[in-house]
Amino acid sequence: MKQLATLQALFQAEVDQLNLGTTPEMLYDPMHYILQLGGKRLRPILSLMGSGIYGDPAKAMPQAMAIELFHNFSLIHDDIMDAAPLRRGKTTVHMKWNENVGILSGDGMLVKAYQYIAKCDASVLPEVLDTFSNTALEVCEGQQMDIDFETMDEVTASAYIKMIQYKTSVLLGCAMKIGALVGGAAKKDADALYQFAMFLGTSFQIKDDYLDVYGDPEKFGKQVGGDILSNKKTLLWIEAKRRAQDQGIDFGSYSSMSPNKDKVHSFQELYKLLAVDTYAKQEISRYYNLSLEALSKVSVEEEKLAPLKEFASWLYHRES
Amino acid sequence: MKQLATLQALFQAEVDQLNLGTTPEMLYDPMHYILQLGGKRLRPILSLMGSGIYGDPAKAMPQAMAIELFHNFSLIHDDIMDAAPLRRGKTTVHMKWNENVGILSGDGMLVKAYQYIAKCDASVLPEVLDTFSNTALEVCEGQQMDIDFETMDEVTASAYIKMIQYKTSVLLGCAMKIGALVGGAAKKDADALYQFAMFLGTSFQIKDDYLDVYGDPEKFGKQVGGDILSNKKTLLWIEAKRRAQDQGIDFGSYSSMSPNKDKVHSFQELYKLLAVDTYAKQEISRYYNLSLEALSKVSVEEEKLAPLKEFASWLYHRES
Repeated sequence: MKQLATLQALFQAEVDQLNLGTTPEMLYDPMHYILQLGGKRLRPILSLMGSGIYGDPAKAMPQAMAIELFHNFSLIHDDIMDAAPLRRGKTTVHMKWNENVGILSGDGMLVKAYQYIAKCDASVLPEVLDTFSNTALEVCEGQQMDIDFETMDEVTASAYIKMIQYKTSVLLGCAMKIGALVGGAAKKDADALYQFAMFLGTSFQIKDDYLDVYGDPEKFGKQVGGDILSNKKTLLWIEAKRRAQDQGIDFGSYSSMSPNKDKVHSFQELYKLLAVDTYAKQEISRYYNLSLEALSKVSVEEEKLAPLKEFASWLYHRES
Repeated sequence: MKQLATLQALFQAEVDQLNLGTTPEMLYDPMHYILQLGGKRLRPILSLMGSGIYGDPAKAMPQAMAIELFHNFSLIHDDIMDAAPLRRGKTTVHMKWNENVGILSGDGMLVKAYQYIAKCDASVLPEVLDTFSNTALEVCEGQQMDIDFETMDEVTASAYIKMIQYKTSVLLGCAMKIGALVGGAAKKDADALYQFAMFLGTSFQIKDDYLDVYGDPEKFGKQVGGDILSNKKTLLWIEAKRRAQDQGIDFGSYSSMSPNKDKVHSFQELYKLLAVDTYAKQEISRYYNLSLEALSKVSVEEEKLAPLKEFASWLYHRES
């Protein structure tokens, strides 16, 4: 993944020299703080790759920054809603300052994202802006669905997939499509690239659920079983609950267990018994294949798409 | 003010048939709720008037709606930050639902505002978008300044004026300018109209401070003296404090009074003694005159500007 490292370095350099504003400090300091917490920068990389298919990846640098700004705005506000103390192992914005600072600097960051999105040729601006706003609204809808699901008794697998797509995957699609549009892609190509990244993101999110249960503790980075301990309605959980009901297995006797290692182990076994581990792996592969299928519809020379295929394969095979 | 009533009715009809979305309900219901709380709709009216100078006021209806959406997004988030229970006499969004609903539906409303802003000819979109985003960021800065001022010992009159301009007046300028641009104004005219509405808004805000002290209780609508009782740093307060220090009057003996009628009466007298009542009235007039001066620079027939002059005069002479 030579290109990935190159693009990550290119983007990080841009973050390092970024000045969104200085005063009032309580508005701008949190923006710079959260942007410097790092992360894989998958979203902006997708924008740069999208532009790179048609020429210079850096042509979409403002839009890559816009996507990263949007992503971080949503993290600040989500962390307030989840009352999360940590983000990437560091103190969250609303804990480091306070909730009001989190709300307002998040708002400012969303506006900043729009300022960066608009830094493109006027000829593509309407389509770029439309894509961005539609996606931003879907992300809000996905976040609300996620909150709603917490207190719902029954969530279907398809509703869950829609939620993770809205909350996460559509922004990957949007990042790629906007990068492509700015780089000079035809609308049809840009739409196919949207589908590529959106399906890849769906596969990625389901893999997140899978790794939480079966990940290698030494590679995963997060605590394995975290979702199980908090009774989080992941795809495995939802499907296991449904299958348990069909087979007369008392799912409640599992979910009501005390949150400790035994519970994690019991769920790992239950999931295998009900074959939802296989189901999850099939879904991860299915969405991965859908993403490759979308990619094959992009009308450029095969070799231009090689970095995207490599990127997709890297994400598909990741263990952390 | 026949035109004002006509435009208000035109805009209200648009609000009444507005459907921003249906599900998730917790995302969209609060948006429709706060929009239906009413208000004078000054901002969208300014957009319609801006377009009306050059042709059909309704041409800027989407942008008028965008401005109103933005304004209401900021109200939802400000009410959370201020822990305000009431807005226009009704329960605030975060009290009717909860803070998370307020944060997220506010976010969605800001995105919706951008969707409506973008509903214009591609030829004016870059300038319209630029004006909107710059203003939106200034509104965030103004809100942060307002929060910062609460805990600062010394706030100058000029810093205060900048704060109210950012927090409130620039959005009036933006509303008018965007309406004008969409209606077909040249950039120079649109900028003059921005100045007109921005200065008018400044005059309006200072008048708010003045009416809080000297308003007729039967006409004002709010409790007279509310700012005095809460030791709010208004323009009169800031200037009185400075003049008291210069004249060796113990301002602290006033500000530390128990919050009751006596305190309001004492401040009314103190302000007169220090002539800050006159100062405030002079500032209200000065900004009103600056707004008329800006209006005189708009290159259209005198009669096209008559409704704006009438509107400005109405705001200037208001007692509530």
